[in-house]
Amino acid sequence: MSTIQELAGGLENVSLYKYAAIECGIRYSNRLDLSLIYSSEPCWAAGVFTTNKMCAAPVILCRERINNSINAILINATNANAATGKQGLENAKLLTRELSKLLSIDENSVLMASTGIIGVQLPVDKMKNSLPVLVNNLSIEAGALLPRAIMTTDTFPKQYAISFKTSTGLYTMAGIAKGAGMIAPNMATLLCFVVTDFPVEQHILQSLFYESVNVSLNAITIDGDMSTNDTAIILSPAKPSVHNVDDIKTFNQALHLMMKKLAHLIVSDAEGATKCVTVKVIHAANDGDAKKAAKSIAESLLVKTAMFGNDPNWGRIACAAGYSGAELREDKLSIYFDEIPLFKDGSPVEYDKEKLMIILKKREYTITVDFGIGNSEFEFLTSDLSYDYVKINAEYST
Amino acid sequence: MSTIQELAGGLENVSLYKYAAIECGIRYSNRLDLSLIYSSEPCWAAGVFTTNKMCAAPVILCRERINNSINAILINATNANAATGKQGLENAKLLTRELSKLLSIDENSVLMASTGIIGVQLPVDKMKNSLPVLVNNLSIEAGALLPRAIMTTDTFPKQYAISFKTSTGLYTMAGIAKGAGMIAPNMATLLCFVVTDFPVEQHILQSLFYESVNVSLNAITIDGDMSTNDTAIILSPAKPSVHNVDDIKTFNQALHLMMKKLAHLIVSDAEGATKCVTVKVIHAANDGDAKKAAKSIAESLLVKTAMFGNDPNWGRIACAAGYSGAELREDKLSIYFDEIPLFKDGSPVEYDKEKLMIILKKREYTITVDFGIGNSEFEFLTSDLSYDYVKINAEYST
Repeated sequence: MSTIQELAGGLENVSLYKYAAIECGIRYSNRLDLSLIYSSEPCWAAGVFTTNKMCAAPVILCRERINNSINAILINATNANAATGKQGLENAKLLTRELSKLLSIDENSVLMASTGIIGVQLPVDKMKNSLPVLVNNLSIEAGALLPRAIMTTDTFPKQYAISFKTSTGLYTMAGIAKGAGMIAPNMATLLCFVVTDFPVEQHILQSLFYESVNVSLNAITIDGDMSTNDTAIILSPAKPSVHNVDDIKTFNQALHLMMKKLAHLIVSDAEGATKCVTVKVIHAANDGDAKKAAKSIAESLLVKTAMFGNDPNWGRIACAAGYSGAELREDKLSIYFDEIPLFKDGSPVEYDKEKLMIILKKREYTITVDFGIGNSEFEFLTSDLSYDYVKINAEYST
Repeated sequence: MSTIQELAGGLENVSLYKYAAIECGIRYSNRLDLSLIYSSEPCWAAGVFTTNKMCAAPVILCRERINNSINAILINATNANAATGKQGLENAKLLTRELSKLLSIDENSVLMASTGIIGVQLPVDKMKNSLPVLVNNLSIEAGALLPRAIMTTDTFPKQYAISFKTSTGLYTMAGIAKGAGMIAPNMATLLCFVVTDFPVEQHILQSLFYESVNVSLNAITIDGDMSTNDTAIILSPAKPSVHNVDDIKTFNQALHLMMKKLAHLIVSDAEGATKCVTVKVIHAANDGDAKKAAKSIAESLLVKTAMFGNDPNWGRIACAAGYSGAELREDKLSIYFDEIPLFKDGSPVEYDKEKLMIILKKREYTITVDFGIGNSEFEFLTSDLSYDYVKINAEYST
């Protein structure tokens, strides 16, 4: 991946697009809460959205329009426009329509994403009146403002940018994301926007993006499938792609790096988290089981509390594997913290407590759960749970 | 149910059995950790056990023996004898064998249940040596000690006793249970033992017991299906039953009351919980959906944190319903706190904030979620999450 270079900053590195973020006062004053990503040239978009049956109005709108050629994404924080009924959808359409007029583009080429409180109608007049200001603020430099403008309970803005070289030249890719302060089975909205100047046909863009989200945003313990608003969108210029297979491969590598990095930033922002732990399931019976088990372990509150307490509680890990629904043979199951086995083929094993403690105190380490019955594996990224919550649990087992 | 009378105390009300609880020192000294329920006359047993694929040795043993005629249940706290491999099962069998010799009964008529730390072998010699003391302590009065002897992180002992009248006479039923300090999606072991002097044929006993557990212990947000050790057992004299249909009906009423009461005690013991809230799903498409949705809402950490914060956050409730997997039509969904609707047919509604606050501050209230698409309903009992944990979440939405 030597052709891929990390860049300082974020969206402003991709100068094919313009950006804007302003203080609209949707729910609070004196904070950036309304932003815009704009391309004068039509783009292909690919998106991955929440699977929640109570999905927010902007998600419904995106699903309708994602296959159009896209010129703009309107984003607001502090109000999710979810569980707002017909009115909510009308509001989203009205705002994208007004924006399309100001930008002289087709209203169906405008996507929208929202995050914040559920069940409250958007202050649509106030937002409508802010759109001209938003459009007037469009610039390449303003890209630096967007990661902060989409935050809700996040404690720091999340952005990443890279350049990558292909046979057709040097390209850039940048992304921003927001998660939530608390990583746990909850409904924290996950928003992620990636832009690139590398042209990819839409069907390829969609499949590569879906694939990369599956092993990044969908492999962290913010349940991507839970929130009403989860939205991940990528934009790429709608030009005929002239790339060869290796070029697409390089783009795919860049995309995976981008999504893994953004996912890592989200997990790092877990409320009070002190650790970023990889849960790796190997030798599961099938791919579905591997993911199910990794998710179950990574999401177990008692596993996360044990991580915080530096408690090598492999029993909780085995238990979470046991209730994951994945095929499991206790006499084949083994559990490792980095390279140290604690449970081997169904029985506890003696281990060097000092060596283990060094691992447990690291900022990042890997828990490997070997099912020993197949060839499938999957990795989940998780965080520990902070002391306030774990008082009781972290101290229970040892 | 006027024929059913609540009794003071617990097991000691059912004098057909003898009980014992001693300090064996399995993991800590100076605490009751080994107990016994014994009947000189053979009993029918019915049991409901964890569905976790990593199930503990005593659960394996119980599944093998539950259909035998049963004379005794050996129970230990502080060590779960789970993830202990072959050795763990051998230890359980050895202890029940030794006990059976002391009681001059068939070793296959002895059941065992354990709770505590996972992955540590039982101190089997120490326990074996304590068995004679345990047997010597058998008495009816000692029944009062057992609810404390099976506790782990519970903050109070849980017992309930009733008498009920049928056409064949007056009978008694008593039960004890232990849950855990923290009610959340976790692996807290749930143990429950019920004894009665009312004879019921085994197949009837099993079906009635399963049915009652399904709407009680399996309808609270300790995930009964998660722990490696969850065990609920009922004992009834193995005599030919001479009861008529109404007698069985009365017994079934008594059993449901018993199990609901024990489930309620477990939820009341949620760590730092200030509330006991019923989540009632109605008009769901089918029974499976009704239970799925009620469980999903009752287990949502954000719903539980909102309860604690007296935050009428119906948005989190709608969201949890949305990701439950249950069939849902947003335009048919309504949400009530007791009698007050907050969300009606897919849209937020105005409500009397003062009236609502009175409900939210009650120790117990009901959240009703009306799916409006079918005829199935299910009730889940849950608790709020204590302040330590909810700092961030309870304050987020309002």
